[in-house]
Amino acid sequence: MKDLIAFCKDKGFVFPGSELYGGLKAAYDFGPLGVELKNNIKKEWWRYFVQEHGGIGMDGGVMLCPKILEAVGYNKFSDDMFLVGNDSILRPGTSGSQLPNFLNFKRSMRLGLPFSICQIGRVFRNEKNARGFIFRMREFEQMTLQHLCTKDQAKPAYEFYKDFAWKFLTERLGLDSDKMRFAPHEKPPHYAVAGIDIEYNYSFGWGEITGIHNRSDYDLTLHEEKSGQSMKVDGAIPHVVDCCSGLERVMLAVLEQAYDGEIFNIKSSLAPYKVAVLPVKKKLSHKAKEICSMLRQHFVVTYDETESMQKRYVRQDEIGTPICVVVDFEDDKKVGLRLRGEDTQRRIAIAELVEVINDHCKA
Amino acid sequence: MKDLIAFCKDKGFVFPGSELYGGLKAAYDFGPLGVELKNNIKKEWWRYFVQEHGGIGMDGGVMLCPKILEAVGYNKFSDDMFLVGNDSILRPGTSGSQLPNFLNFKRSMRLGLPFSICQIGRVFRNEKNARGFIFRMREFEQMTLQHLCTKDQAKPAYEFYKDFAWKFLTERLGLDSDKMRFAPHEKPPHYAVAGIDIEYNYSFGWGEITGIHNRSDYDLTLHEEKSGQSMKVDGAIPHVVDCCSGLERVMLAVLEQAYDGEIFNIKSSLAPYKVAVLPVKKKLSHKAKEICSMLRQHFVVTYDETESMQKRYVRQDEIGTPICVVVDFEDDKKVGLRLRGEDTQRRIAIAELVEVINDHCKA
Repeated sequence: MKDLIAFCKDKGFVFPGSELYGGLKAAYDFGPLGVELKNNIKKEWWRYFVQEHGGIGMDGGVMLCPKILEAVGYNKFSDDMFLVGNDSILRPGTSGSQLPNFLNFKRSMRLGLPFSICQIGRVFRNEKNARGFIFRMREFEQMTLQHLCTKDQAKPAYEFYKDFAWKFLTERLGLDSDKMRFAPHEKPPHYAVAGIDIEYNYSFGWGEITGIHNRSDYDLTLHEEKSGQSMKVDGAIPHVVDCCSGLERVMLAVLEQAYDGEIFNIKSSLAPYKVAVLPVKKKLSHKAKEICSMLRQHFVVTYDETESMQKRYVRQDEIGTPICVVVDFEDDKKVGLRLRGEDTQRRIAIAELVEVINDHCKA
Repeated sequence: MKDLIAFCKDKGFVFPGSELYGGLKAAYDFGPLGVELKNNIKKEWWRYFVQEHGGIGMDGGVMLCPKILEAVGYNKFSDDMFLVGNDSILRPGTSGSQLPNFLNFKRSMRLGLPFSICQIGRVFRNEKNARGFIFRMREFEQMTLQHLCTKDQAKPAYEFYKDFAWKFLTERLGLDSDKMRFAPHEKPPHYAVAGIDIEYNYSFGWGEITGIHNRSDYDLTLHEEKSGQSMKVDGAIPHVVDCCSGLERVMLAVLEQAYDGEIFNIKSSLAPYKVAVLPVKKKLSHKAKEICSMLRQHFVVTYDETESMQKRYVRQDEIGTPICVVVDFEDDKKVGLRLRGEDTQRRIAIAELVEVINDHCKA
């Protein structure tokens, strides 16, 4: 872990928060490569759970009226939470704003049961035992789907989302299923009739990466009681199955799995840079920069003309850039294409670059 | 404005925050369409300022060590800000974590001056006079570029970014330049040697949408003094030009401009849904759903099989969906394609749909 933390700081992924002024407990800032990786994970999640699966999205405020949390059993004076001003609490989970809004969404989107509400957003917990680098922080992001359905649909949905979440982590993010396991709750928490975690085998041991719960009608029954407003659909309170991942925990698993000190073996779709443009000599920098600008219409691209080509390859391998474009002749309509970790390159027409890179980064 | 607020709630763009429990002052939740629009604006900003322009990104914590803010002249007990726990402040602007990190980024990304640090993130102000719907809220998002350069480069950079920001709003987001103006500061704020706002003519009057400032070496000189660490590059403290937009203000301008009660005239690239799939009769729903799934690999798609085709067109026009795909025959390899607000449709091969939609939504 120590090596990974140093790597993350050295390469621009993750920096200690407020470092210049002595740092802030369990807080980190994501640097130029870290934010791209984080955004790529978010994009994959949104694509999978919202765009393809047909969930509906939302983005709620992080400040909540305390009554929302009190309704479902939180104590606003709990020292796990942050009070703000005199009328708000920083939300300890995204779900605080999802369920209280469900009738608004149902009406405005003209939906019947079942449907799913999805949100990616920042949440806050006053962690006393922050640990494990970005594994446990005071502020972090959750990626949450809450599936609203009838009582009969809840158990099958719970089984479905266990599988669906596992596939997201392995197939979309490329996490190694040998390093993952299901960890069922022996006794589910009070708000759920069944719960299971997906855990990842981090360098410090197994840790929860995603939780799936069948919450029954627990939350909405309480909201009906406390708000005095009916939460019923077709005469019954909907049941809720949720599936929630910690973004930075997913990111840490991706980082640990990819990092080996030499080649950063990350799925191309998650790589911070898709392409590095490298002129073999300074004289070619004008041409190389033109190619760089052209590629930037399509991809996140870096440009490097310093030191030897070998050193530049090493630098790109270390941060996982899938493709190096080597600009080697002034009057050639072709350039060299070199894939991560490979010794050889092949020549390819500049006019075909976008398509070839697209295909490679999709695979 | 009243009509727009009702429209936003009715169609799933924006809802009052914590509404179920009586609401929270100046807080809003973004619904299924609102979050897509918001994300599309963010994507365009990131593409323009980071991917194409070559800025470097970051994502900092929203909790800051108070010393960071005190260094640049904020008073942590000011009632404009939110204190959290006993050691943090919710940041009143994104820049709080950008400049204190600049040497980390410079080193890890191997950069020389000039370079730009970009961030999109949530910020917090304890507004006493929240107003104008989502124009002034207690929590909102900023999209900020900070350009670090030498003293000589600062003035030209300030001129460049005025133009660059204006083009972003007009060319990328489609805001009408007739509804915008530059409003120079007669007397720039104490931290800047020059400043100018881009204002939009909202229904309630002119309001700032983007600010551009030449901050000279004001911030970094203070950080050097207060942190005791050198902020110099090549023997001099860098100058900073910043260019900062309020995301929800941009979004409000887009909403106001697009909304006319009938057709929501939004740029296709910003439209929440790119496509609506509409079977002419229920019997075709199986085929239509297959097409829907296929299109969801590429676009955010909605599906509607209820009520008359005319009513469905109206619904899609109202929320700005650029394209309706009309599934009308079981055994046909073609479908109808109907553009927003048009009376006619043309027939197009299912196999060509993705390309045609892509081209239309790029234009």
